[in-house]
Amino acid sequence: MKDCNRVWINVNLATFDPSLPDAYGIHTMCALGILDGRIACIQPMSSVTATSLPFDVIDGHNGWLTPGLIDCHTHLVFAGNRANEFEQRQQGKSYQEIARQGGGILSTVRATRVRSKEQLIKSSLPRLQALVSEGVTTIEIKSGYGLNLPDEIKMLEVARELGKRVPVRVKTTLLAAHALPPEFAGRPNDYIDLVCKEIIPAVAEQGLADAVDVFSETIGFDLEQSERVFRAALAHNLPIKGHTEQLSLTRSSSLAASLGALSCDHLEYLDEAGAINMAESGTVAVLLPGAFYYLRGNKKPPIELLRRFKVPMAVASDVNPGSSPMASIRLMMNMSCILFQLSAAEAVAGATREAAKALGMIEDIGTIEVGKIADLCLWDTMHPNELPYELGQSPLLQRIIGGEIVYER
Amino acid sequence: MKDCNRVWINVNLATFDPSLPDAYGIHTMCALGILDGRIACIQPMSSVTATSLPFDVIDGHNGWLTPGLIDCHTHLVFAGNRANEFEQRQQGKSYQEIARQGGGILSTVRATRVRSKEQLIKSSLPRLQALVSEGVTTIEIKSGYGLNLPDEIKMLEVARELGKRVPVRVKTTLLAAHALPPEFAGRPNDYIDLVCKEIIPAVAEQGLADAVDVFSETIGFDLEQSERVFRAALAHNLPIKGHTEQLSLTRSSSLAASLGALSCDHLEYLDEAGAINMAESGTVAVLLPGAFYYLRGNKKPPIELLRRFKVPMAVASDVNPGSSPMASIRLMMNMSCILFQLSAAEAVAGATREAAKALGMIEDIGTIEVGKIADLCLWDTMHPNELPYELGQSPLLQRIIGGEIVYER
Ligand SMILES: [Zn+2]
Ligand SMILES: [Zn+2]
Repeated sequence: MKDCNRVWINVNLATFDPSLPDAYGIHTMCALGILDGRIACIQPMSSVTATSLPFDVIDGHNGWLTPGLIDCHTHLVFAGNRANEFEQRQQGKSYQEIARQGGGILSTVRATRVRSKEQLIKSSLPRLQALVSEGVTTIEIKSGYGLNLPDEIKMLEVARELGKRVPVRVKTTLLAAHALPPEFAGRPNDYIDLVCKEIIPAVAEQGLADAVDVFSETIGFDLEQSERVFRAALAHNLPIKGHTEQLSLTRSSSLAASLGALSCDHLEYLDEAGAINMAESGTVAVLLPGAFYYLRGNKKPPIELLRRFKVPMAVASDVNPGSSPMASIRLMMNMSCILFQLSAAEAVAGATREAAKALGMIEDIGTIEVGKIADLCLWDTMHPNELPYELGQSPLLQRIIGGEIVYER
Repeated sequence: MKDCNRVWINVNLATFDPSLPDAYGIHTMCALGILDGRIACIQPMSSVTATSLPFDVIDGHNGWLTPGLIDCHTHLVFAGNRANEFEQRQQGKSYQEIARQGGGILSTVRATRVRSKEQLIKSSLPRLQALVSEGVTTIEIKSGYGLNLPDEIKMLEVARELGKRVPVRVKTTLLAAHALPPEFAGRPNDYIDLVCKEIIPAVAEQGLADAVDVFSETIGFDLEQSERVFRAALAHNLPIKGHTEQLSLTRSSSLAASLGALSCDHLEYLDEAGAINMAESGTVAVLLPGAFYYLRGNKKPPIELLRRFKVPMAVASDVNPGSSPMASIRLMMNMSCILFQLSAAEAVAGATREAAKALGMIEDIGTIEVGKIADLCLWDTMHPNELPYELGQSPLLQRIIGGEIVYER
C-alpha cells in the first residue's frame, strides 16, 4: 500500500470479479490502492495500519465502490429532436404516415447533416453530461445520421471531441449502414458499395472509429449487405457489432457471431440457434430496454436462453431521438430488471463488466481487479442493489477515471 | 406592464388556460408581468415597447413558460429503502414470502418509527431535491409510515419542515389509514377507531394536514372502514382523497366521489359507474404510472372512460420505497404517455393544471392566467411536448415561485 499513489480506505467493493462466488463479487471493508492509474492492491481494512498508508488517503466512509459505469451502445450525437413525432404517435398516427411526412430517422439525418461540428457538440453535450453525472466513465458513440462520407466523419469527430471536453472515455463506432440515405433510394446495394469501398476505408485510414456497426433488419440492411459491411470492416482491422434481430428473426445475430462480432444488440427475436452461435463466438448480448419500452414492444429478448448458454448480457441506453430519447443508464438498469426480469446484480454487471466486454475493453476496465485501470464510482448506498432499484436522486459520491477523482459530491 | 414588479419578455407560453382552443393553451412570443407574486398581465411582444416595461426585465430568449410542475401524490418521507425486497422479487420470491420475512410496507414503518425528525429530513431531502430540480414547485406529501399518533405527527411535521428548507410549496396529507400496524393485527376496526377518534382530531387540531387519505383496498381497508375515516375527516373540515381501486374493483372510487373527494388515485380497476360518479363530483383521477410499471401491472386505468366522462386526469410520482421508488415527475409524465397512452399535452396538463385541481389549489396555481400565483418553469425547449418525450438531461432554465426565481441555470 505504501507505494501506492493514492488509497481509498473504508470502502466496500462490488468488484464483479468473476472468480468470486457471489454475483456482485463483494469484498466488504477494504482499502483499495492506485498506482499509475491502475488498481495496485486490495486489502481488508483489518490489515491496514496507519504506517502502511501513503500520503494521499481518501476515506470512503463505508460507501460502495463499483467499476465505473459503461454505456456501450449510444447514438448520442444528433441534432434536433423528434418530440413532434412522439406526439403524433401518441395521437395514433402510424409510423408509415409519419415517415411519409418526412419524419423518422431521415428527419434526424437532415437535421444532423446541416449542423456544424460545434453545433452538434452543443446539442449532444447535455446528453453526455447527463450520463456522466450518473457515473458513466466509458461511453460508446455511434455515427449513423450522416450517411455520407463527410457527415459520418463529422459525427465521429464530434464524438471524439466530446471525449476531450468531458472527462469520460469515448469509443466511436461507424454506423454508416444505419439507414438508406434518400439520395440512394431504391439502390441499397449502391449505398453498401459506398460504405464498403469509400466510407470504411477512409474512416479506418483516419483512425476515427473503434468498431463498425450495421442495422441488419428487414427495414434496414439484409444479411448479404450486412455481411459485406462486416467483411469490409474486418479487412480494415476494425471490430464489428450489429443491431440484430430487434424486429424479426433474420439470423443476423448468427451472421455477426460467425464473423466474431464483439456484440449483437437488441435481440428481441433471437432464437436458440442464434444464442448458441453467440455463446460459441463469445459475442456479448447488448440489451436495450429503453427502445423496447419506447416502441411498446411485446416480444422480449430471450433472457433465459442467454443465461442458459452463458452469453454475457450488457445493458445500454441506446440513447437516440426516435426510439430511446433517454440519456440515463440507471433508468436502463432499472428497466432491464422491471421489463426483462434481469436480477439487480445482472443489471449492474450489464453496465460494467459485460459492457466492457461488448467494447472489447475487458482487459482494462469493467471490474475491480488488481491490474485494471482504476475507473470507479463511489456510491452512498447500503448495497449496490440500490443502483437499479431507485431513480430520481443520485447516490453518486465520486466518479473516478484512471485513479483521478473527476467528480465529487 | 409598467406597474409590474418584474416582466419576462420573449417567452412562449403553454398556459393550459382551458378557455384557449388548443390543448396546451399556447401563446407564442409574449411578455408576462408579475405583481405581488401573481401574474398581472400577458401581452404579445409585438405590443411591448421599451418604455412600457418596468426596471426588472428578464429575457426568456424564446424559451417556454409552463405552470410550475405539481406532484400531487407522494410518500416522499420515509426511512430506509427496500432494495433487498426488490432484489428478492426479481429472484422470484413472492410478495407473501417477503412479507413473512418482515418485508413490505411494515418494514418501512419499523424504519420510520425509530428515526428522529432530523434523520427523516436527511433521508427525504434528496428525493425532494430531485423532484424540485426537475421543476416541481408544489408537492403533496403523505404520512402513513407512522401508523400511530406520535409517528404520524412526526411525519407530517417533517413534511412541513421540508417545505421550509427547500423553496417549494408542500401540501400534507394524513394517511394514517395506510396499513394495519402490527400492534393492531386482526383488529382493523380498533385501529380505525384510533384513526377516527384520536389521530384525525389531533392532527386537525394542530393544523398539520391539508387533507386525509385512505388506502381503500382488499389488502387495505374495506369500504365501511374507509367511509368512517372519510366522514371523520370531513367532520374536522379536512378534504378527503383515496387510494382507490388499484388492485380490484371495490367501488371505493364511487364512495370517495359521493363524499366529494378531491381525487381518487391509481384507479386501475375503476369501471364506468365509478368514472361517472367521479365526473359528477368533480373528483380528479390521479394516475400513478410508476406503481403500475414497478408492479408490472397488466390492467391499466380506464383512460378512455375518464376522457369520455371528462374526469380530469392528473399524473403523479407516488414516490415510495415499495412500489414506485422513483423521484421523477418527468419520468412519470413519460410513463403516462408510453404506458397509459396519454397525449403529451395530457401528460403536461396532468402535472400542472389537473394536479392543482387534485390538491384543491386550482384557484391559485396550475395554469398561466392573470390573477394566478406566478409559480412557473422556464424551459429551453422548442415546444412543451419535449417535456414528456425526452429524459436524462433537463431543459429547465428557471424555476419560479410566486414570481421569484428560486433556481436558474
Ligand atoms: Zn442503436
Ligand atoms: Zn400512494
